[in-house]
Amino acid sequence: MQGSMMTRPLMISALIQHADQNHADTEIVSRLPVGGTHRYTYHDAHRRSRQLVRALLALGVKATDRIGTLAWNTHRHFEIYYAVSGMAAITHTINPRLFPEQISYIVNHADDRFIFFDVNFAALVEALVPHCPGVKGWVAMCAASEMPANAIPNLLCYEDIVAAQSDDYEWTEFDENTASSLCYTSGTTGNPKGVLYSHRSTVLHAYGSSLPDGLGCSARECILPVVPMFHVNAWGLPYAAPLNGAKLVMPGPHLDGASLHALFEEEGVTMSAGVPTIWLGLLQHMQSKGLKLSTVKRLVIGGSAAPPAMIKAFDEQYGITVLHAWGMTEMSPLGTVNTYKQKQLALSAAEKDAIRVKQGRAIFGVEMKIVGSNGETLPRDGKAFGDLMVRGPWITGGYFKNEGGDVLVDGWFPTGDVATIDPDGFMQITDRSKDVIKSGGEWISSIDLENIAVAHPAVAEAAVIGAPHPKWDERPLLVVVKKAGQDVTKEELIKFYDGKIAKWWTPDDVIFVDDLPHTATGKLSKLQLRERLRDYRFTGV
Amino acid sequence: MQGSMMTRPLMISALIQHADQNHADTEIVSRLPVGGTHRYTYHDAHRRSRQLVRALLALGVKATDRIGTLAWNTHRHFEIYYAVSGMAAITHTINPRLFPEQISYIVNHADDRFIFFDVNFAALVEALVPHCPGVKGWVAMCAASEMPANAIPNLLCYEDIVAAQSDDYEWTEFDENTASSLCYTSGTTGNPKGVLYSHRSTVLHAYGSSLPDGLGCSARECILPVVPMFHVNAWGLPYAAPLNGAKLVMPGPHLDGASLHALFEEEGVTMSAGVPTIWLGLLQHMQSKGLKLSTVKRLVIGGSAAPPAMIKAFDEQYGITVLHAWGMTEMSPLGTVNTYKQKQLALSAAEKDAIRVKQGRAIFGVEMKIVGSNGETLPRDGKAFGDLMVRGPWITGGYFKNEGGDVLVDGWFPTGDVATIDPDGFMQITDRSKDVIKSGGEWISSIDLENIAVAHPAVAEAAVIGAPHPKWDERPLLVVVKKAGQDVTKEELIKFYDGKIAKWWTPDDVIFVDDLPHTATGKLSKLQLRERLRDYRFTGV
Repeated sequence: MQGSMMTRPLMISALIQHADQNHADTEIVSRLPVGGTHRYTYHDAHRRSRQLVRALLALGVKATDRIGTLAWNTHRHFEIYYAVSGMAAITHTINPRLFPEQISYIVNHADDRFIFFDVNFAALVEALVPHCPGVKGWVAMCAASEMPANAIPNLLCYEDIVAAQSDDYEWTEFDENTASSLCYTSGTTGNPKGVLYSHRSTVLHAYGSSLPDGLGCSARECILPVVPMFHVNAWGLPYAAPLNGAKLVMPGPHLDGASLHALFEEEGVTMSAGVPTIWLGLLQHMQSKGLKLSTVKRLVIGGSAAPPAMIKAFDEQYGITVLHAWGMTEMSPLGTVNTYKQKQLALSAAEKDAIRVKQGRAIFGVEMKIVGSNGETLPRDGKAFGDLMVRGPWITGGYFKNEGGDVLVDGWFPTGDVATIDPDGFMQITDRSKDVIKSGGEWISSIDLENIAVAHPAVAEAAVIGAPHPKWDERPLLVVVKKAGQDVTKEELIKFYDGKIAKWWTPDDVIFVDDLPHTATGKLSKLQLRERLRDYRFTGV
Repeated sequence: MQGSMMTRPLMISALIQHADQNHADTEIVSRLPVGGTHRYTYHDAHRRSRQLVRALLALGVKATDRIGTLAWNTHRHFEIYYAVSGMAAITHTINPRLFPEQISYIVNHADDRFIFFDVNFAALVEALVPHCPGVKGWVAMCAASEMPANAIPNLLCYEDIVAAQSDDYEWTEFDENTASSLCYTSGTTGNPKGVLYSHRSTVLHAYGSSLPDGLGCSARECILPVVPMFHVNAWGLPYAAPLNGAKLVMPGPHLDGASLHALFEEEGVTMSAGVPTIWLGLLQHMQSKGLKLSTVKRLVIGGSAAPPAMIKAFDEQYGITVLHAWGMTEMSPLGTVNTYKQKQLALSAAEKDAIRVKQGRAIFGVEMKIVGSNGETLPRDGKAFGDLMVRGPWITGGYFKNEGGDVLVDGWFPTGDVATIDPDGFMQITDRSKDVIKSGGEWISSIDLENIAVAHPAVAEAAVIGAPHPKWDERPLLVVVKKAGQDVTKEELIKFYDGKIAKWWTPDDVIFVDDLPHTATGKLSKLQLRERLRDYRFTGV
C-alpha cells in the first residue's frame, strides 16, 4: 500500500525557484575572469537562468544533450548549472587544468553539443576546436565588448544570446532520476570516466550536506566555494546555498591567499570550502602580513587529508573551526564531515586533536563499511583497517556509457581507500588500497610509516612501498630523501620506529635517494616509485 | 537519460541503522507511565526493534497491516515506530484524548490488527474492546509484573513478546512510497480523516526538518519532544533525532511545568518542541519558583500561534530562542520555521519582534502560495492575504481510503488557513479560511480585529464573526465579554479601532455577552458562536 503523499519529483529547478521566492534579494557576488566584481541576486539569477533556457532551446539544445563548461566559479557558471539541468539537458563541467588531449577526449566521449568557456580559456579553446568536431558552437561567457579575438568557429557571446530572450519560461517536472550533470574523474590509470548525477541525487545531497553536522548551511551564512565548479560541482555548494538562502560569493580565477583574504573581508564570508593547498596559501598570506579574518567561522577542508598543524593554526590563531571532510567525485562528493558529538565537547585538547585529524562521520544517506581481503566486514573499532566501501542514493553505481564495466561489489562502491572506522562512526583513511602493504596476510599502512619517518629531524621526505618478500609476500621498504646537510643511517631510522608502531610493521630496509617522483599536482607518485624500484627484492629471513 | 547513481530507496529502517552504526552509545531516556526512568541507547533500541519485528511476524502481522498505538512518548513507542514501519506494516498512532466513540471509529476505519497501549489506558482499552471487533490482540506496553488487571481479551505483554525473540532480523528494502504510518486529523466537521505517510515522505521530512533553518538537529543536541508521538509523529523528531545522532528524551505522560523542568535539567536537554499551552505551564512554574533552565537553547512552538509575550519572556528572561513553527497533520507536519536571515540580525529589537510573531519561512520541500477568492495567486508583499495553499513531497495528496474525495486544487493542498507572505518569504496566518469576513469582495481578518479588541482595558475576551449584510455580503460583528467590574460602550469600542486599522475593517456592531463558546481543548469555537448568532442581520447602510 502506498502512502497518501503527493508524488512530487526532486528537481534541481526547485532549488533556484525556492531561492527566488524566499530569498529574492540575497546576493550572488562574482569576481570575473576579465576583472571586476559582478553583483546580483537570486531573483536575477533565476530570471537569467530562464532566459538562458530559451537561448539553449533556440540553439537547438534538447533534453539529454551534454553542454560542456570550461569555466571558473562565477554567476554565469551558476546560471548554466540551473538552465541546462532545469531543461533536462546535462551540465558537463570540464577541468581546464587537464592536458588538452584529455579535454578533447572527454568532450568527445561526452558528445558535448556546446561548450561554454571563460574568455581566459580562449587560447585553449582555439587549440581544442580541431579535435572536437561534434561541438556545434562555443559560447564565450562574457559581454559583446569582451569577446576573444581567437580563431574560434561558431563562436557565440553569452550575454548576447541571453539578452535576446525573455524570461517567459516555466520549469517543467520530469523523472527525478533523470541525469542532470556529468563530471569526469581523472583516475591514475585508464581513461577518465564520467559520473552522471541525477536530479534526485543532487537534491538529496544538497539536503544531506546542508545539515548541522554536514556543512551547516543557513540563511545566515555567506558561502564562498573556493573549490571549483568543475570539481564535483564545487562540492554541491551551488545547490546547497539556494536551498538554504545563503549568500554566495564566487571567487573567479584568483584563488591565491591575498585575493581570497580580500574577498572574504569585503563580502563578509562566513564559510568557505577548498583543498588544503588553498588554505596553506591563505595561512601564509595572513601570517606574513599579520592579517585576521573578521567574519569567517568555518572552513571546510577536503580533497586530501587536512594536515593537523593547519587545523590547529586556524583554530588557535584565528578562532576558525576547520571542518575536515571527505568525499569523492563518485559520491557527489560528500561522504563524511568531522564534527563533534555532545560527549566529545568536554574532552581535553589532546583528545579532541586526535578526533579532528580523522575524516569524520557519515552523513545520513551514506553507508560505509570496511572489508578485509576476502570481502569480510571488519569491526568498527578504530583499529582494524580495510577497503572502504560506500553506498547510498548520491553514490554512483557505475560510469557514463558503462566505462569500466561493473564497479560495484555486492552493491557497494569500492572507494579505493583503506580506512578505519571507530565505534563513534569516525572514519580515518590510512592508505590508498593500491599502496597498502600486504605482509603475511595482514595489512600495513604506508602512510603511518611515512608519517613517522618524516618526524625524524634528518628526513626531508619519505615514502614507503611494499617490496616482494619470499616468505611474507610483501614487506615495507622505506625510501628517504635526507635534509640538506643532515645525515642519518639506515639503522638509526629503523630504530626510530621502536615503540611507535607494532614491531612487525617496522620497515625491513631503507633506501636513500636524492629525490622522490611526484605527480603533476605535486602528490607523491608511488606508481612511479614502484616502477623505479621494481627490481628490489627482500631476500627473506 | 538516467543518472548513474545507485538506486537506493529512502527507508525509515535506515535511520535507526544509521544511529546504531554511528551513535551506538547515544542515549534514549524515557519517563515511564508506570513511574521511574528507563535509559538505554540507539544500539539497544535497534536491537529491540528487530526483536519486535520478529514478535510481530510471530503474531501473524503482514506488510500493510495497521498496528495501532495508544501511548505516550517512551522508548517502547519509539521501537514500535521502527519495527512496524521497518517491516512494511503501518504504525497507526491514536490520540488517547479523543472520545472513546471517536477512537473506536478510527480503529475500525483503519482496520487496526493489533493495538499497543500504555497501561494507564487500560480502562479505556477495556471500554474500547467491544466496539473494535477487528482487533486481534491488545499489547500492554509494560513488563509482566506491570500487566493491567482489566478485562481485556487477547491481552499480550510487550516485554514478554519481545523477550521471546532474537534480534536476528535484517531490514528489507522496498518501494520508498510504501505507506509507513497513519495519523487521523480531527477536523471540526465530518469524521476524522487519515493521513498516510510514506517512507519517502518521512525521510525527506526528517532531512528538511533537521536543517539549520529547520529545527537544527545535530549530534550535539539533546532533544525532548513534548509534542506527543500521536500528534503527527511528534513532529517527526523520533526520525530526525537518529538521523543526526541526537540524544532523545521521552517525557512519558507528565507534561506539567514541574515535571518538564526537572527532566530538562536532569538530562541536559538542549532543544524541545510543543504547543503554547505546554510552554505557558513551564513559564509559570519557573516564574513562581524562581527557576532557570541551564541547558535549553531552543524551544520549538507550533500547533497554534506562539503569543508574542511568550516569545519575549523566554528570550529576555531565560536566554532561550523560541522557534516559531507552523505545520499540519497533512504536512508531516513541518511547513515553516521562523529563523532570521543574515540581513535581519542587525535589526532593532522592535523590528525583530515584528518578524518573530510570523509563522516563518518555508523549508525547502514545501512550496507555498496564497490565492484570492477566484483562485488567483496573490502577491508576496506581506499585505495581501488569501487562502494558503501548499505542495511538496511530504504533503498529503488526499486521505486514507479516499475519505473526503479529491482535496487538491490544481495539485495544491488547501490548508484552510488565510495568510500573508512577505517578500522575505515569511508567512503569517491571519485567519482560518472559514472565519475570514468577506466584505464587498474584500477580506477582513477576524483575528486582527479580535487582537485590537482584547487590548482594550475593559475587554476580557472578544470574537469577531461575519454577519450577513444586504449590500456587502458580510460585515464584521464584534462579540465581547467585559472584564468583571469594568464597563465600556459599543461606541467606545468602535472608536477604539480608529487609526489602528483600515476604516472599512471597523466592526459595524458590538454585542456584549456573558461568555463565549469554547471547544474541548479551550479554543474559541466560532462554529458555535455563529450558530448562536445565526439570526443576526445587518440592516444595511
